[in-house]
Amino acid sequence: MRVVDLIRRKRQGLELTRDEIAALVAAYTKNEIPDYQMSALLMAILWQKLSRAELAALTEAMLHSGEILDFSDLPAKKVDKHSTGGVGDKTSLILAPIVASCGLYVPMISGRGLGHSGGTLDKLESIPGFNVNLSLPEFRRVLAASHCGLIGQTAEIAPADKKLYALRDVTGTVESPFLICASIMSKKLAEGIDGLVLDVKTGSGAFMKKKEDAVFLAELMVETGKRMGKRMVALITDMDQPLGRMVGNALEIEECIEVLKGGGAEDLGELSLQLSAWMLFIGERANDVAAGYQLAQEAISSGHALEKLREIIQLQGGDADVIDDPKRLPQAKHKLEFTAAQSGFIASIDTERVGTASVVLGGGREKKEDTVDPAVGLVLYKKLGDEVSTGEPICTVHYNSDARLEEAIGLLRAAYHIAPIASELPRTLIHQIIDS
Amino acid sequence: MRVVDLIRRKRQGLELTRDEIAALVAAYTKNEIPDYQMSALLMAILWQKLSRAELAALTEAMLHSGEILDFSDLPAKKVDKHSTGGVGDKTSLILAPIVASCGLYVPMISGRGLGHSGGTLDKLESIPGFNVNLSLPEFRRVLAASHCGLIGQTAEIAPADKKLYALRDVTGTVESPFLICASIMSKKLAEGIDGLVLDVKTGSGAFMKKKEDAVFLAELMVETGKRMGKRMVALITDMDQPLGRMVGNALEIEECIEVLKGGGAEDLGELSLQLSAWMLFIGERANDVAAGYQLAQEAISSGHALEKLREIIQLQGGDADVIDDPKRLPQAKHKLEFTAAQSGFIASIDTERVGTASVVLGGGREKKEDTVDPAVGLVLYKKLGDEVSTGEPICTVHYNSDARLEEAIGLLRAAYHIAPIASELPRTLIHQIIDS
Repeated sequence: MRVVDLIRRKRQGLELTRDEIAALVAAYTKNEIPDYQMSALLMAILWQKLSRAELAALTEAMLHSGEILDFSDLPAKKVDKHSTGGVGDKTSLILAPIVASCGLYVPMISGRGLGHSGGTLDKLESIPGFNVNLSLPEFRRVLAASHCGLIGQTAEIAPADKKLYALRDVTGTVESPFLICASIMSKKLAEGIDGLVLDVKTGSGAFMKKKEDAVFLAELMVETGKRMGKRMVALITDMDQPLGRMVGNALEIEECIEVLKGGGAEDLGELSLQLSAWMLFIGERANDVAAGYQLAQEAISSGHALEKLREIIQLQGGDADVIDDPKRLPQAKHKLEFTAAQSGFIASIDTERVGTASVVLGGGREKKEDTVDPAVGLVLYKKLGDEVSTGEPICTVHYNSDARLEEAIGLLRAAYHIAPIASELPRTLIHQIIDS
Repeated sequence: MRVVDLIRRKRQGLELTRDEIAALVAAYTKNEIPDYQMSALLMAILWQKLSRAELAALTEAMLHSGEILDFSDLPAKKVDKHSTGGVGDKTSLILAPIVASCGLYVPMISGRGLGHSGGTLDKLESIPGFNVNLSLPEFRRVLAASHCGLIGQTAEIAPADKKLYALRDVTGTVESPFLICASIMSKKLAEGIDGLVLDVKTGSGAFMKKKEDAVFLAELMVETGKRMGKRMVALITDMDQPLGRMVGNALEIEECIEVLKGGGAEDLGELSLQLSAWMLFIGERANDVAAGYQLAQEAISSGHALEKLREIIQLQGGDADVIDDPKRLPQAKHKLEFTAAQSGFIASIDTERVGTASVVLGGGREKKEDTVDPAVGLVLYKKLGDEVSTGEPICTVHYNSDARLEEAIGLLRAAYHIAPIASELPRTLIHQIIDS
C-alpha cells in the first residue's frame, strides 16, 4: 500500500476498499503514516465525500483502533444517548438516572465543552468531588452497581479518533458529516452498547444550523450504527434557543436536579422524557415509545430517578448533598441583570452567541489549556415569543470577574432580537425522528 | 493569521488575499507552518482552484522566498524557454546556443528527468566533465562570457518551491495546473529574464494527455508571467510520438550536435527553430517571428550556433571535442534491434511507454536516489504513419545490462501499434500558439 496512491484515488472520487481503510487507520494509529499525508487525505474526504461502505469501514477501523468494552455479562440491555451539542443542553444528566432507575444500563462516555457548546464532563465536575476519570475496571464496577457510569474518553477508547480529531482541528477538516459520524460512532460503539439514541440539534445554537444538514448527519449515523448491529434512532431537535433556563456548568446541574424533582423548564423536561422513552424502547424495557415515556414519567414522580442520581454521584466520589442543597454547588460572586432595551416580543435568539457569552465568562474554553469556571453562567427568563417590557430582565449573568463581562453583555445584546409584534409560528421541540 | 482559518476559507471556495498568501509561503519556508497544515491547504487548492490573483500572489511569494537573479547590467535581453516535458525533448540544447549566438542572453536553470520524461541536466552531464552545479557567481560569469549558462536549481532559488514540491509529491497534490504553474513560474522568473517561451506538450508522451489541459496550463502561465511584467508566449506542441530520433542522455546530446551541424530529424530541427524564433522575437532581437526564424536558420548554416555550443561546453568544464567526435560520449556496451512483429503502418505510439523503456534501461530514475546511466537509450527509425515490414527494425536499444532489457522490450512492444492501413491524418507539430 502506497499512501500517496490512496490519497490520489480518493481525490479523484474513487472508492477505497475496506482493507485499505483498515490498514490506513491502523498504520496512522501506530504513527507509521505522517500527519501530512493523513491531513491531505482528510481534505480529499471533505471534497469527495465517503460512500456508505467507506464510512462503515472507517468507523469500524477507528473503533477497532482501541479497546471495545464488553458488558454482555450484565443482565439487561445497555443503551446510551449522544447529542451533537448545543446551549443549555443538559439532558444526559436527567435521562441517565431515569433510564438506569428503570433497569437498563447506561455506560456513558462523554466529552468536554466544544466551542460555544457545553460538555457533560465539565458540568459533572462542578459537583464537588465528582470523578469523571475512572479507569475502565472502575467504570465497570460503578456501572454494574448503579446501572450508570459517567466518564470521559480514556486512552484505551478509539485512539485513532483522538489522533484524527486533533489533526482535523488544525487542518480545517472538522466539518465533514462523514468524519463527524465516524468520530462519534467509533467512540459510542466502543461503549459496548446495544442501542443508541441520537439527539441531533439544529438551529442557531447548533453546529448544524440548517435542518437538512442535521438530517443528513443523523441518517449517516443511524445507518452506520445499524450496519454494526445496533438499535439506532435519531431525534432532530430544536436549538434555535437555549434548552431550559440555565446555561453554565453548576447552574445546569442545579436545573437537572430541579427536573428530577418534578420541576424545571418545560422544554427541558419534555425533551428529557422523550429521549428517555426512546432509550427505554430500544433497550427493550418498554414495548413502544409511549410506554417508555410513561415509565420515564414514573421514574421522576416516584423519586427513583432522583435517588439514582444520588447513588451515581456517591459512587463517583461526588458530594451527593448537592441534591438536597444545590447551593453547595459553586456559586458566582457577582450577579447582574441583563435587561430589555425595548418593549416587544422575543423574535429570535442567536443561541450560539448566548453560548459564547457563557464561554467568555469562563464557563468554557477558548483554548484547550484553559480551565473552566464552574460557577459562572446565565439564568434565562425569556423564551422565544415571550413578551418583554423595556428594563425587564431577560437573564441574570453570574460572573466572577469583571474582565470580560462587557464582552458577554455585548454578545447577549446582539443575541436577543426584540420585535414589536409576536410571531404566530408555533415552536417545535422535536422536528423529526429518524428510526428506519 | 491563524493558518486553520485560511485553510477553511480556501476549502469553502473563498479567496485568500495577496498578503495572506505571502505570509503563508514565507512562514512555511521558515518551517513555521507544519507540513500537515500545508498539505491540507494544497488539497483544498486542488479542490477549489485558485483565482488568477491568488495564483499570481502564490507565484510571487514562492519567487520571493529565495534569491532573484539580476542580470540587468548585461547589455541585451535575457530570455529562456521552459518545456513541460516529454520523450526525446532536447530542444534546449539546440535553441540555447542558437539564441546566444544571435546576441541574447539565455540564463537557463533546468531540471532532471521526471517520471518517463528526460531532463536537461541529466543530458548535459553525459558530456564528460560538464558541470551543471555552478554557484550563482560562476553562473553569472559564464553567462556574461558566452551569453548562455546551463545549471540546476540552487538552494538560493525559490526554496519554497523545493519544499512544496517535495510535499506535493507524497500527498497526491502534484496534478493541479495552478500549483504546476506557480512552481514553474517561480523558478523561471528567478532567472532574471525579460521573456519566456513555453513549450507545453500534449499527447501520449506528455504529462497533459489532453490538449485542453495543456492549453489551460499554458494560459495560466502566460497570464501569470505577464502580470509580473514578462514577455510571454506558449506553444502547444505535439508529444504523440518521441521528438527526433534519439531517446537517452548521451544519444540526445549526439542528436543536438547533428542538428546544429545542419542535419538531424526534421521535427526536432523545425521545433527548435520555431522556439528559437519566438525567443529572438520576444527578446527584441527580431522584429517578428519570421525574422527570428531566419536568424535562427542562419545561426545554424553559418556554424555560429555550433561554435557557441563548443564555447558553452568549455566554459562549464566539459569535453568540447564531443562536437567533432560524438563517439567520445558514453557508449552502451550492447545494442539490440527491436523489430516489427507484423507489416503495416505505425498507427499510434504510446510515447510514455517509450520514455519508460529508456528509464527502465537506466536512462532515468525510478527513485530519487537512483543514478542515471548516460549511455543507454533508443535510436528510433519509424515515425507515425511510416510503413514497416515484418522483421524490420523499429528502433535500436542501447543497453548496458540484461537485467531489465526484457521489460524495456515489453514496453516497446506495447507502445508501437501497427495497423494494416495508413492514416490519412496529417501530423501537426505545433497545435496552437498562445501569446495574448
